[in-house]
Amino acid sequence: MLQEIAAQPAALEQTIYAEREKVARLAQAVRARDIDLIVLVARGSSDNAALFGRYLLEVTTGIPVSLAAPSVYTLYNAELRLSRALVIGVSQSGEGEDINTVLAQARRAGALTVGITNEAASTMTTIVDEVLLMHGGRECSVAATKTYTGQLLLFYMLAAALDDDSHRIEYERIPEYAAQALGLRPRIEELVERYVFMENCIVVGRGFAYANAYEFALKLMETCYVVAERFSSADFLHGPLAMIERHFPVLVFAPPGETLNGAGELLTRLRELHADTLVITSDANVAAQASRCVMMPAAIDELHHAIPYIIPAQLFAALLAAAKGLNPDAPRSLSKVTRTL
Amino acid sequence: MLQEIAAQPAALEQTIYAEREKVARLAQAVRARDIDLIVLVARGSSDNAALFGRYLLEVTTGIPVSLAAPSVYTLYNAELRLSRALVIGVSQSGEGEDINTVLAQARRAGALTVGITNEAASTMTTIVDEVLLMHGGRECSVAATKTYTGQLLLFYMLAAALDDDSHRIEYERIPEYAAQALGLRPRIEELVERYVFMENCIVVGRGFAYANAYEFALKLMETCYVVAERFSSADFLHGPLAMIERHFPVLVFAPPGETLNGAGELLTRLRELHADTLVITSDANVAAQASRCVMMPAAIDELHHAIPYIIPAQLFAALLAAAKGLNPDAPRSLSKVTRTL
Repeated sequence: MLQEIAAQPAALEQTIYAEREKVARLAQAVRARDIDLIVLVARGSSDNAALFGRYLLEVTTGIPVSLAAPSVYTLYNAELRLSRALVIGVSQSGEGEDINTVLAQARRAGALTVGITNEAASTMTTIVDEVLLMHGGRECSVAATKTYTGQLLLFYMLAAALDDDSHRIEYERIPEYAAQALGLRPRIEELVERYVFMENCIVVGRGFAYANAYEFALKLMETCYVVAERFSSADFLHGPLAMIERHFPVLVFAPPGETLNGAGELLTRLRELHADTLVITSDANVAAQASRCVMMPAAIDELHHAIPYIIPAQLFAALLAAAKGLNPDAPRSLSKVTRTL
Repeated sequence: MLQEIAAQPAALEQTIYAEREKVARLAQAVRARDIDLIVLVARGSSDNAALFGRYLLEVTTGIPVSLAAPSVYTLYNAELRLSRALVIGVSQSGEGEDINTVLAQARRAGALTVGITNEAASTMTTIVDEVLLMHGGRECSVAATKTYTGQLLLFYMLAAALDDDSHRIEYERIPEYAAQALGLRPRIEELVERYVFMENCIVVGRGFAYANAYEFALKLMETCYVVAERFSSADFLHGPLAMIERHFPVLVFAPPGETLNGAGELLTRLRELHADTLVITSDANVAAQASRCVMMPAAIDELHHAIPYIIPAQLFAALLAAAKGLNPDAPRSLSKVTRTL
């Protein structure tokens, strides 16, 4: 897992180089049709990547996005009206049966279908109109890391190709940001010692950082066996806040931009409740509100933070697992390909 | 909270009686337009009701549904293409600023807008094209119960009005099912004693039962301060399963229908892992796989289970809070109206 985390800058570079042309072709196909809905379908870490894709694509293209509920198709056999939809399946292995069933049904319903996967020879690639691949080699660790950031990158590339340039997505900067984030490893190594006996926690992020809250929580669940809940800061205030008592650990993503103020206010509220907070941010004032912080490079802006900001979280999960005496590459009860219908 | 739980059959009757005509009028307005997307926007318990609405409306109408991310509108100021959309806001108080902002923007974008609320004089009702009300009086407990089931019922009524009758939604049967479910109170009173020291748990449901898993978990978080994670059984197998160790509590909804087999298989897997499981079901074979069970009336079928099946869960949360020496009507750190943007 640590090797795959470290391989991310190079993998991202490769994906940019190898997929740029295909993404441009796909954007042309989208523009040539009357697309008024994007449906994303995925499970696990890939579903977290889709959650990011949702925010990015809605904000930059103005096209509404729906995260599919696979059981609507696979168990209830619904036939949705998707003739004006772009349907994108996301699966590391390309073998998720439920994802592939949704893609096949969507194509029959007249949708433009796309598969995002790490496996060029997988079943998914035989079903869809266009395939986008993550590069950088097979992922061996059960806990996804480089495929998650590869999926985020492909959403950036697609959004940039569909955007009229008003949002200035410069995804070419992301591999360098990822490399900078890897430099935090010594800081994280030191930090995790404090969390060895943490049994449960809450992870909070909002907007472009919401998906990372889900992904950080999932890494903590699968590699450290921590009961990690995930919320947007707005949803968190609608009920779950009641759980917070003295020393309750809350991990907060506070990247620059529109969500920063809310994150700062949440940290102030959590301080009043004597929670134990860890914040990933580049803002010194917000960091001062938290019990502990991971300081990110200030140059990483709102639109480009998602990939570099998940890297300290990936490192945290892998190193905390090791500090707990667990092997993050072989979580109990799991295998790499999960088959559900 | 217990009073409001008990008031649900009567409240549901009143809502059917008072809203039937308005729902029929709304269905006509939907049919008169070229609607190819339904967007639901809500927070907290109302968002859980919307999650149910999503499954029900997609399965019965074939129109794709998207659960809105309010921050896309309120923080990132995106202007989505919604001219062919039906946008439904759900809010107990009708005063959720973020929900109302989304509704106002959607109306400007040409969408048909609907507000589902408990407060006829709220801000929400002044923004939307059509208002659907839950009846049965103001909700005083911070933890929503009768407004949650009232919202589910309105989704049933809307789905029935939009359906071509092929799904045979008979929502008039639901108040009686709810009354039967209330009869489980002595069983739940006895059961909660066993869970007084439970600190965290996982709640699982899928398809039409997925929203209830979210709602049960939220009730446990806000009234009992239990760290309760919620998953669909399919997502649960993609990683979070690793958390399960001997005696880990897992609460499972296993209603009849398409999701029953999967729930049974999950319980068998959890048994192998020595988890401590509680199942809400009417199926004796599935019940036999679990550590403890709540047996529901066998007459309640797949399409109509969501409201009666949440009632033992509501009772469980309220009675467990009392058994823990907590007041479920006054959760710490919360107030009835949560204002977020």
